[in-house]
Amino acid sequence: MLDVAKRLLIPSKRSDVPPFIVMDVMAAAAQREAEGAHIIHMEVGQPAAPAPATARQAAAAALAVGRLGYTEALGMPSLRARIARHYGETYGFDLDPARVVVTTGSSGGFILAFLAMFEPGDRVALANPGYPPYRHILTALGCEPVLIETDPETRWALSPERLIAAHRQKPLKGVMVASPANPTGTMMDAASLKALIDTAEAEGIRVISDEIYHGLDYAFRAETAVKLSPSTVVINSFSKYFCMTGWRIGWLVAPEPLVRPIERLQQNLAISVPTIAQIAAEAAFDGREEMEAVKHGYEENRRILTEGLPKAGLDKFLPVDGAFYLYANIARFSDDSLDFAKRMLNEAGVAATPGIDFDPIDGRHYLRFCYAGSAQEMHEAVRRIGSWLKR
Amino acid sequence: MLDVAKRLLIPSKRSDVPPFIVMDVMAAAAQREAEGAHIIHMEVGQPAAPAPATARQAAAAALAVGRLGYTEALGMPSLRARIARHYGETYGFDLDPARVVVTTGSSGGFILAFLAMFEPGDRVALANPGYPPYRHILTALGCEPVLIETDPETRWALSPERLIAAHRQKPLKGVMVASPANPTGTMMDAASLKALIDTAEAEGIRVISDEIYHGLDYAFRAETAVKLSPSTVVINSFSKYFCMTGWRIGWLVAPEPLVRPIERLQQNLAISVPTIAQIAAEAAFDGREEMEAVKHGYEENRRILTEGLPKAGLDKFLPVDGAFYLYANIARFSDDSLDFAKRMLNEAGVAATPGIDFDPIDGRHYLRFCYAGSAQEMHEAVRRIGSWLKR
Repeated sequence: MLDVAKRLLIPSKRSDVPPFIVMDVMAAAAQREAEGAHIIHMEVGQPAAPAPATARQAAAAALAVGRLGYTEALGMPSLRARIARHYGETYGFDLDPARVVVTTGSSGGFILAFLAMFEPGDRVALANPGYPPYRHILTALGCEPVLIETDPETRWALSPERLIAAHRQKPLKGVMVASPANPTGTMMDAASLKALIDTAEAEGIRVISDEIYHGLDYAFRAETAVKLSPSTVVINSFSKYFCMTGWRIGWLVAPEPLVRPIERLQQNLAISVPTIAQIAAEAAFDGREEMEAVKHGYEENRRILTEGLPKAGLDKFLPVDGAFYLYANIARFSDDSLDFAKRMLNEAGVAATPGIDFDPIDGRHYLRFCYAGSAQEMHEAVRRIGSWLKR
Repeated sequence: MLDVAKRLLIPSKRSDVPPFIVMDVMAAAAQREAEGAHIIHMEVGQPAAPAPATARQAAAAALAVGRLGYTEALGMPSLRARIARHYGETYGFDLDPARVVVTTGSSGGFILAFLAMFEPGDRVALANPGYPPYRHILTALGCEPVLIETDPETRWALSPERLIAAHRQKPLKGVMVASPANPTGTMMDAASLKALIDTAEAEGIRVISDEIYHGLDYAFRAETAVKLSPSTVVINSFSKYFCMTGWRIGWLVAPEPLVRPIERLQQNLAISVPTIAQIAAEAAFDGREEMEAVKHGYEENRRILTEGLPKAGLDKFLPVDGAFYLYANIARFSDDSLDFAKRMLNEAGVAATPGIDFDPIDGRHYLRFCYAGSAQEMHEAVRRIGSWLKR
């Protein structure tokens, strides 16, 4: 038995979540740059552009006025109303602002939703590959993530059949869906999303729809789950479409009976969401024209990669439907995506994220490329990868 | 049995935490103002002053430059180094910046510390009265808060004897201490704090010291637990001394073995802390002169209240040592502090928080007054309370 002093320093079992490997790739890329190398960054999932000018101006004006105090725990009423209006403008759905909760990024939304919806021990289904914090937040909060494999037949999305199969094995209490998805960049059309939600909810399985990449859809239009079911919880954020990652501001839409429990949780867990970010976010909706131009840049990048990478030698990737990710299969070259990513960084000067971050099962065969940079960088990345793979 | 559709909407048991009653008082006060009444706000624990000019200027400069992306999960290295330097300047302690973790307010720090230190089911001792989110966050994360009564003999602080008595009944895994404390405004001197930490840690009970009100000490100097034990986790924030509540920025100091687990939790639970708030916080340390003037205002307010309230009829309160709270006993007038607070709001135009928010046992006999407003407001509050109580 350890002595008392040592026992004081042992981390809890529930803090034993894996790190985000992308962070280690970032650190390695920064190290290479410090050594004088020129690196093309395609590893981190964040836009190169700043928040819309309207948002930055509103933030500057708030700073000039003076004090930034706490706001209502559910968020500023004017921001909640503006977000509700967005559902009318974008999806033609008349949303009650009382169902909108402002959150500290989508991260804050996940914590609130998981705590309000699930008990410790509850099983929650996730598509594999998927966003790693889904499973790690669930684990930290005592829930059991259940990974369900996806494949080309369902466009790498969760299918009703596989969900039900997992549920029959041992009952599920929830399921997360994401369209566009991270890391795959694939999307579900409205009919597929509705079929999944209907199947889940008919079985009493609660659905959370992560819509953080909405607005960044190229293959077809993304549909919101808000419109498809009154029981689904929807999580969204200003980080991606509105280029506001570091501001830590997002929202969720909940069925009415969950709003008050979520409000009490937020009062206790966060007090309120960053005030300057709330003010900027409300004004961000007036910056859509600027953000549409940014989106057109992603579309051009997507074209450069989908045309260029096959010629460079990376000819197997998933449908590049939305978000700003291209998920490439590298099995032809390597069984170890971490090693492949390290060598590509060191030898070609291109940073990408190994699939093992997103897929504990087959991630060693995949790399995620983020195409939120400039067109020039995309051309150069294709060129570098091409000459590296030909060596 | 409920039908499936209804079951989808039931909140989890763990989301059934009580609300912050102060929020309801705020709402009632706002309602009275909307009706044309003039209200003196002494209910919310936040400074009336804005962040230091140095902080606001740094934030404005960052906005002008452009993009605010994610930062390192542990916080910007320059901010971590600046916080470490603060321990040298303020407490004469040489702190390794590697032990500093930047957090989304102290709220973010509590979540990280509790998750990293405690397993579900662990019992954690808290002083009663105390800050309500301590017990509610613990409950939401599956831990069991154990309230320990305090009294005048130990200046309303946790005593080693009572801690050990509770531990002998059923083993404790942790204890939270706060000096200055919320809602009482009382402090522990260095010897009392050290005695409590030593007793706890000798028994294998982990200590978290909430030092959010450090810098706002009037009776004597507050000592940091960082200096008293290498095993204690310390939580702090820019919200109170630096007047940055709505920015949501704080920090914690952890023993080295807990830093990496906390980093992984933060990567997954938050990605990173608001970037503009980190930039502003680093510059806030250059605004100490401005903040010392604010603090002198609190000292003047404290003098006005401690001299005036006894003459107004409220002559029983706890030692007004630090923070910006005065915790008054109203048992002479009422057995129902919520009703008393409502009447004082409606009839005297002074908003304060009923003790039931902070003390489920004897809170019905107490009111918390926040004296972070102006001297003029304090004089007027004393006058209004005096004429109201004399009616």
